[in-house]
Amino acid sequence: MLLKFKNHILFHFPFLQKAKILIAVSGGLDSMVLLHLIAQLNLEFAVAHCNFQLRKDESDEDEDFVKSYCKENSIQGFFQKFNTNQFSEDEKVSIQVAARKLRYEWFYELLATENYDFVLTAHHLDDQLETFLINFSRGTGLDGLCGIPSQNDKIIRPLLIFSRDEITTFANENKLKWRDDSSNASDTYLRNKIRHHVVPILKELNPSFLNSFENTIQHLNQAQSLVDDASRIVYRKVVQDVDNQKIIDLNELLQLPNYQAYLFQWLSPFGFLAWQDIYDLVEAQSGKQIFSEHFRLVKDRETLIIETRSDKISDEYFIHKNQSELNFPLKLTFCNVSDITISNSKTIFVDVYALKFPLKLRKWQEGDYFYPFGMSGKKKLSKFFKDEKFSIIDKENAWLLCSENQIIWLVGKRLDDRFKVTENTQTIIKIQLV
Amino acid sequence: MLLKFKNHILFHFPFLQKAKILIAVSGGLDSMVLLHLIAQLNLEFAVAHCNFQLRKDESDEDEDFVKSYCKENSIQGFFQKFNTNQFSEDEKVSIQVAARKLRYEWFYELLATENYDFVLTAHHLDDQLETFLINFSRGTGLDGLCGIPSQNDKIIRPLLIFSRDEITTFANENKLKWRDDSSNASDTYLRNKIRHHVVPILKELNPSFLNSFENTIQHLNQAQSLVDDASRIVYRKVVQDVDNQKIIDLNELLQLPNYQAYLFQWLSPFGFLAWQDIYDLVEAQSGKQIFSEHFRLVKDRETLIIETRSDKISDEYFIHKNQSELNFPLKLTFCNVSDITISNSKTIFVDVYALKFPLKLRKWQEGDYFYPFGMSGKKKLSKFFKDEKFSIIDKENAWLLCSENQIIWLVGKRLDDRFKVTENTQTIIKIQLV
Repeated sequence: MLLKFKNHILFHFPFLQKAKILIAVSGGLDSMVLLHLIAQLNLEFAVAHCNFQLRKDESDEDEDFVKSYCKENSIQGFFQKFNTNQFSEDEKVSIQVAARKLRYEWFYELLATENYDFVLTAHHLDDQLETFLINFSRGTGLDGLCGIPSQNDKIIRPLLIFSRDEITTFANENKLKWRDDSSNASDTYLRNKIRHHVVPILKELNPSFLNSFENTIQHLNQAQSLVDDASRIVYRKVVQDVDNQKIIDLNELLQLPNYQAYLFQWLSPFGFLAWQDIYDLVEAQSGKQIFSEHFRLVKDRETLIIETRSDKISDEYFIHKNQSELNFPLKLTFCNVSDITISNSKTIFVDVYALKFPLKLRKWQEGDYFYPFGMSGKKKLSKFFKDEKFSIIDKENAWLLCSENQIIWLVGKRLDDRFKVTENTQTIIKIQLV
Repeated sequence: MLLKFKNHILFHFPFLQKAKILIAVSGGLDSMVLLHLIAQLNLEFAVAHCNFQLRKDESDEDEDFVKSYCKENSIQGFFQKFNTNQFSEDEKVSIQVAARKLRYEWFYELLATENYDFVLTAHHLDDQLETFLINFSRGTGLDGLCGIPSQNDKIIRPLLIFSRDEITTFANENKLKWRDDSSNASDTYLRNKIRHHVVPILKELNPSFLNSFENTIQHLNQAQSLVDDASRIVYRKVVQDVDNQKIIDLNELLQLPNYQAYLFQWLSPFGFLAWQDIYDLVEAQSGKQIFSEHFRLVKDRETLIIETRSDKISDEYFIHKNQSELNFPLKLTFCNVSDITISNSKTIFVDVYALKFPLKLRKWQEGDYFYPFGMSGKKKLSKFFKDEKFSIIDKENAWLLCSENQIIWLVGKRLDDRFKVTENTQTIIKIQLV
């Protein structure tokens, strides 16, 4: 297995040889094998361990186990405790989604603050298969069957070519130690049912099933890349991006025998899912409209127009600590960095210690004031708008990023002086309007 | 169920209301339900029953059952016995493939000779699901997960929206009679294992699993249509069709980040499946080549060329009775028709009773002679070539369609007078070079 792993890394991730790597290590079987394999390859790496505090003492014992292992083997380790239950409640997401969010946000923070290049996780081929079958059991599209990617930006999963059996055998042969996760045995009901009742039958029916499955996933990913190509090529012919609207030319669209497939590609990212309604809208009278959570789709003569719901624009949006991006109503990214690089109207650098989380994104109100960077003293926002010759529409479209009641940023226009990076700043956060 | 069926037919197959329909009826549960439903709709239909003679008396009893049903209900019925075992041996295909081939070829023959427009079969949603899982268990691509189409040319499957449970309930409620197929219980090992062990778990995990599955299949088919679009759009930019070669421009191809996905789309229909070899060929020296069963793929400077293997061209190819097409080395279609329409160099009409099956397609040899249509008497082929000013290459590319040792057709050029349709002809076969 070591040789196959070495070749896999050399062939598919040659850049890891000159990279600084973080390995996500829970202390369980899979991640301890990954750690052991990487340690044989003479790469520069450290360990990152998340303690989600979901299993009381056990969670802490896992952390201690990884800590001791790092100490004994002189491996640098990063350890982080999360209040996962709290986060799950606050964000109104499941525990699994909360844990995943916290984990990846912390990894990205570590990459930035500690100057690492990639995070390696220990997902394997059986994880891949179970995810496929879970998505399939719930109903999905091609993307849901394409599996976990072996590389997704800075996250790399080099064990995806190995089965659970191979990994277990390797761990035993090499007398590795690991912690059994008591939640693995119960895990989620769904995953377990699939792992213990569906997968064994598939493996029995086809002794080389996992190999076939690897090929299937590869073919499906290739198909997905062609779907993306077609979607993009036809989008350019049929859709116009104008300001905050996307305008679909129905005369062009309806020339395509499979136009419904294109509508699905373009509209589902905006949360439109009532397909029969959408297909009906194509034929409907001008003025008819349907809504997704945040967007409106309106038939306007020979076009369909996608735009933000006006009733949604006046909302407030919150950005939590460690949240790496906000996608709506604007796309903002948040990233801890070690130094200031080029700043411009779309990129600001802020002193983290001046911030009170959660940050809030909101529209301006009469009476708002801030301390425009580069000016002395405070200024009413209405005065600032006037001096900068903002049109009514400019003012309507303006967003404020705030820390409690203080304005941090008139987004895309001006930083507030109180939040700027100074020589005393210890931790810098880079915020970008994308 | 009747109402849902009615609406489904009206919405998706409105043209059936003015069509002449053949219903494929085995006598089993599914097809008897289909027959019962169609009978309620006031459509013009007849029954077609295949007796594959695979289960001795039982097969004959099924035929008798359908015959009696048709008689009692004054329904026109077509009945055909097949020597499926023999055909399976002759064609070197499995019994299942043989039965499918015989069935659909006979259906197409009936459509043509009896002037019907469509054949309806009783495949349902559980068949669809089992086929998906069988293909998945073996390893497949997107096409293998797209399921059985609800319409494929003249074959329509209007029960695909119903589950096996719905169909069973309907049959019981309406006190329908049907024959239980003893082979259903054993069926194939693979399909049964999936039906009885995998499907129940998926249904247990998600109570509306079959609905989700229907949506999944629809999404996958839409994705497949986008894959086909991308493949076709990019093919036009990157591939030149010249005579018998397809020339792939590598300079264009390699600009695509996912060029391997395109090669897969274009090459797999030619039987190329050794993907690593193909991807290596892209980088290989000029002159390097690989082979599929019938084709050669050669690197030639900045191109990849697909062409027929020269060592395969001198083979003989056989066309069996009821075979509706030959795809290699030429594409020929065979179709029983009731009358002669326009004939030209690419389309001939032949008296079936003059033919001895299997027909043979072969290259010409010294000594060959035939009776050119429109000339009196016989003529040596070499003399005919000379008179018609055939070049050496024309002669090399010439194919003869033969019945035993007699030439029926110098393909694409001239019919033999002995096989022409006369006033005494009872059954006409139309042969086309496509």
